Amino acid sequence: MVAEEEEEKCIENPERINIQVPENKFKTRINVENILKPMDPTHSVLLILNQEIKLKDLFLEIWNTHHIRVCADGGANRLYEYFQDDEDEDEVERSLHLPDYIIGDLDSLKMEVRKYYEDKGVVIIQQNTQYSTDFTKTVNLVSLHYFSTKFKDIIAVQNSTAKNHGIGIECGIHDLYNELMKNGDSVMKFNKINLLALGGIGGRFDQSIHSITQLYILEQTDKYFELAYLTETDLIFLVPAGGTLLTYSENFRNECIGNCGLLPLGGMTKIIETQGLKWDVTNWNTSVSSGKVSSSNRFVGIDGCFINCKDSIVLNIEIFKDKLIDFM
Amino acid sequence: MVAEEEEEKCIENPERINIQVPENKFKTRINVENILKPMDPTHSVLLILNQEIKLKDLFLEIWNTHHIRVCADGGANRLYEYFQDDEDEDEVERSLHLPDYIIGDLDSLKMEVRKYYEDKGVVIIQQNTQYSTDFTKTVNLVSLHYFSTKFKDIIAVQNSTAKNHGIGIECGIHDLYNELMKNGDSVMKFNKINLLALGGIGGRFDQSIHSITQLYILEQTDKYFELAYLTETDLIFLVPAGGTLLTYSENFRNECIGNCGLLPLGGMTKIIETQGLKWDVTNWNTSVSSGKVSSSNRFVGIDGCFINCKDSIVLNIEIFKDKLIDFM
Repeated sequence: MVAEEEEEKCIENPERINIQVPENKFKTRINVENILKPMDPTHSVLLILNQEIKLKDLFLEIWNTHHIRVCADGGANRLYEYFQDDEDEDEVERSLHLPDYIIGDLDSLKMEVRKYYEDKGVVIIQQNTQYSTDFTKTVNLVSLHYFSTKFKDIIAVQNSTAKNHGIGIECGIHDLYNELMKNGDSVMKFNKINLLALGGIGGRFDQSIHSITQLYILEQTDKYFELAYLTETDLIFLVPAGGTLLTYSENFRNECIGNCGLLPLGGMTKIIETQGLKWDVTNWNTSVSSGKVSSSNRFVGIDGCFINCKDSIVLNIEIFKDKLIDFM
Repeated sequence: MVAEEEEEKCIENPERINIQVPENKFKTRINVENILKPMDPTHSVLLILNQEIKLKDLFLEIWNTHHIRVCADGGANRLYEYFQDDEDEDEVERSLHLPDYIIGDLDSLKMEVRKYYEDKGVVIIQQNTQYSTDFTKTVNLVSLHYFSTKFKDIIAVQNSTAKNHGIGIECGIHDLYNELMKNGDSVMKFNKINLLALGGIGGRFDQSIHSITQLYILEQTDKYFELAYLTETDLIFLVPAGGTLLTYSENFRNECIGNCGLLPLGGMTKIIETQGLKWDVTNWNTSVSSGKVSSSNRFVGIDGCFINCKDSIVLNIEIFKDKLIDFM
């Protein structure tokens, strides 16, 4: 019998089970809590995209657990507006929560918001090229921030009076990034960067799907990024091909997370094995077009869950944002 | 040269162009306005899923353009709550907008809501089976409503005092539907049914993707359904494989719709040709995992757009809900 013909199985588990996964079965280990509260706080970035910030107080906690904060274009409006409740402006809080960078073609950035952050000394970088999206511009900037001494020198030397901080207005970031990447070997040695994005999912549907493509793209182009999206209802990230052990504390699991889904948005694939889901599967072919997708599932592994998929697959975990605050 | 090697192209069009597509190039014709305002009002169904109804006044217009209204389980709570503004209950309006059916395992249906609609004579059908989702239960019910005389007799004869209207509580709808479908030939002669669903997209991410799978599934199992999702921001439906001509009035296009995306959520496919998009493509391989997805595109064809894709592909069209009201 060839592997392709191995029996497809789906079993229903009790609400709590212990899972035991030998070290040699998984290549990747992801702690779910650390996506929100990074282990290495210095290499953690909060990316604010152009969508209303609906996380309420959780937003401030997430802000505090991340070292660098970047607004993509109109994302800066959303940060500005977060500190505004009906007619009340919380000017003190706003001035205590300044982003490190604002980047994009700046078409969406409101004049008053631009002026506000400019006056406060925020580095605002205009990049006009239409050949990359605001998202790509942002992640390239983050790579430069962490790994390019040349970029750091430019930003440090050119003070805010220099036009566009000394960065080429058309595609200066892109050029600096390409220069950095020329030395492919060194990239492999870069530290991991935790990149948590707000506002990528849940707005216009093609934009949500565009955000999902970025999970697959960064896995190929910038392996040092660990990208996740946080929405009002979900934490969404890519589980890489091969064995992955997801871990979490028992308390976190019981309090903060609900349902989950393994979503083959990259195309048809096979889930070779899962352990610790309410409905565990083996040799399970999955695709959106067949309708065979593991949704409305949930973690029943007491402190972890094992997922082994032939190709990388999108995982969403329902989060309870009001409960999450106590864990931050 | 084999077809697979034909040159991939992407061109940028002016903001308005005329397109001319000969009749023999397309198999399907879809009028975008008719998705919201069906040509055959008698065969049109509004499906309300369990998510807050955020369409404001547009909701009432959509309600009026659809003949049959079905709430899937907790969807009935959302309909009930729509007629509630802070503390004010609009009891008169609520009683004028009664659904034809409420169906599901009824786990999510609130007691007071159930009692309210029961007292008003709404047909509430409990279906306990966990082997199909509320969505599937609902579409099977709609098929029975239109095509099964046996179902109609049961509902008519058994008045509201009969337990579950004479329908088996575990999977009576499913059984009746299977019976109806046994005669496969007759199904082919069924009239098209316009099925517009509210609340399927935009909530928990795995539920949104589950809703997307339904587009692909119904295309296979119940060809007479023309399913679309309406969200606060988008109209989402499947463009079938082969040539499709999308039409709309010039005015509708100018006023009510914004960006669009061709989203290969069923897996990697090839867009053989488009005409009438801002960025038209030819022989264009597209997949989420490659990141090559036509998003943030828009219609520039004055009164139509032609899409020829190797496999069925999801299309989202951004809609401006406040403008749409004038077109209803």
